[in-house]
Amino acid sequence: MQEGLIPNVSVDCVVFGFDFTHLNVLLNERNIEMDGIAFADMKLPGDLMRLDEDLDASAARILRENTGLSNIYLKQFKSFGSPDRLKKHIRDMEWLRKIDHPEEHVITIAYYSLIDISEKRNSELIMNDNARWIPVHEIKDLVMDHFEIITCAYEYLRIELLNKPIGFELLPDKFTLSQMQKLYEVILGTTFDKRNFRKKISSMKYLIPLNEKQVGVAHKPARLYVFSRELYAKTKKDNFDFSV
Amino acid sequence: MQEGLIPNVSVDCVVFGFDFTHLNVLLNERNIEMDGIAFADMKLPGDLMRLDEDLDASAARILRENTGLSNIYLKQFKSFGSPDRLKKHIRDMEWLRKIDHPEEHVITIAYYSLIDISEKRNSELIMNDNARWIPVHEIKDLVMDHFEIITCAYEYLRIELLNKPIGFELLPDKFTLSQMQKLYEVILGTTFDKRNFRKKISSMKYLIPLNEKQVGVAHKPARLYVFSRELYAKTKKDNFDFSV
Repeated sequence: MQEGLIPNVSVDCVVFGFDFTHLNVLLNERNIEMDGIAFADMKLPGDLMRLDEDLDASAARILRENTGLSNIYLKQFKSFGSPDRLKKHIRDMEWLRKIDHPEEHVITIAYYSLIDISEKRNSELIMNDNARWIPVHEIKDLVMDHFEIITCAYEYLRIELLNKPIGFELLPDKFTLSQMQKLYEVILGTTFDKRNFRKKISSMKYLIPLNEKQVGVAHKPARLYVFSRELYAKTKKDNFDFSV
Repeated sequence: MQEGLIPNVSVDCVVFGFDFTHLNVLLNERNIEMDGIAFADMKLPGDLMRLDEDLDASAARILRENTGLSNIYLKQFKSFGSPDRLKKHIRDMEWLRKIDHPEEHVITIAYYSLIDISEKRNSELIMNDNARWIPVHEIKDLVMDHFEIITCAYEYLRIELLNKPIGFELLPDKFTLSQMQKLYEVILGTTFDKRNFRKKISSMKYLIPLNEKQVGVAHKPARLYVFSRELYAKTKKDNFDFSV
C-alpha cells in the first residue's frame, strides 16, 4: 500500500448530472483481466483517505484525481461498513491485490453531488479518459457494493428533491418550466400533467420568470426562469412551520 | 491495541433524552490523572469498530458496552474525520496512550438516537455507573471533538423536528399537549403562545386524543394524546407535495 494512506477508510463520490433527458452518474471504467481475458466494468470514483486529510478535502482530491472534476459541491451523505463489502466478487479481490489495496474491512464514506451537464457546461468539464456519465437506469453490475451506494444516494436525492429546491443544482442557470418538469419526472420516476405541475410550482415565489426566451430551438421558444437563492432563504424564514 | 479492532475507525453515539424539562445527552464520565491530580470529564459513548462488524451492529455494541442501553433506535448521521480531532488537548493524548488507543487519524462515524426518559421508563433503563444524562445547555468542555459532534447532532435534530414527527420518539406513548409544546420549545429554543401552538398542530391528523386524562398530578389533569404512526404514513401519502 502507498505510504500515507489510511488502510481502513475510503471515500466514494456519487456525482449526479442531468442532461435534459436522463439522470446520469459519473463512473470510472475499471480494466481487469480474469483467466487471461481482459474486460472492463464500472466503479464510483473513490480511493483510500490520506493520513493528513480532512474528510471533505479527501473527497475533493479523490474526485479530481479520478475524473478531472474540481470545484464542485460535494456533500457527505452516508458511510458504508459491511465487513464483506469488498469480498462480493472474486474479480474485485484479485483487482485489490493487484493494486496493492487492503482487502480487510474498509469503511467507505460516501459523498454526493449534483451538477448541471447540459450541453454548454459539459463541454467545459475536463474529464479523465476513463470517466463517463452513465444514465442511472442503465447501471447494473458495478464493482463491490457500489450499486448499493448509488441506490442509497438516489433515494437520498429523491427525499431532498421533495423537501428542498435542490433540483435547480442540476439545471442550467436559466431554464424552461418544461425542462424543470422533465427533471422532476425523471428523478421521481413519474409523469405530471403540465397544468398540475405548473399549479404545484406556482407557490415557489423564488422561481423568477425572465424577459428572455430560448434561442436556437426547433419548437416555439419557451420563457426562461431563474432560481433565486436569496428569495428562497427569505421565503423559508417567512413560512416557519413545523407541521408535516 | 486490543486485537480485532480497526485502528482508524470509531463509532460515537449521541443519545438524546427528554425529561419534560430539559433535552439531555447521555455521556460517559472519563477519569484521568494529570500531573498527579485526578479529575473527571465527559465523553460520548464511543469506541473503535471491530474487524468483523457491520457499522450499525458496531454502534449497538458500543452503546451497550458503555451505557448498558440496548434495543434502541440508532441512526447514522455523519462521519467526522479532521486529522487533528484527537490532538486538541494534551490530556486526551495522554489518555489515548494509557488505554492503548491509536493516536493517529481516527475517523468516527456518529450515530444519533431519541428516547423517552420520562420518570417511568428511565427507572427501567439499566445504566452503567459512569453513564449520565446531562442537560444539553450544561454541556461545555468535552473530550476531543465530542462537543462539535453533539452540536452537529443537535442541528440535525432541529431540522428533523421541523420536517418530520420525530418529536414523539422523545415523549412517552401517552402525553399531553403541554408536554408536547414544552418539547418543541426546548429543542427549538423558543416559546409558543399556547393558542398558536394548538393551531399549528391542529393539522396533524395523526395526533389522536384519548378518552383518558393524566393521573396523580397536582394541577387539573390534562387530556392524553397518542401519535399514530399508521395515520402519519397515510397522511404523508395523501399530501404528496414537493413545493417547499
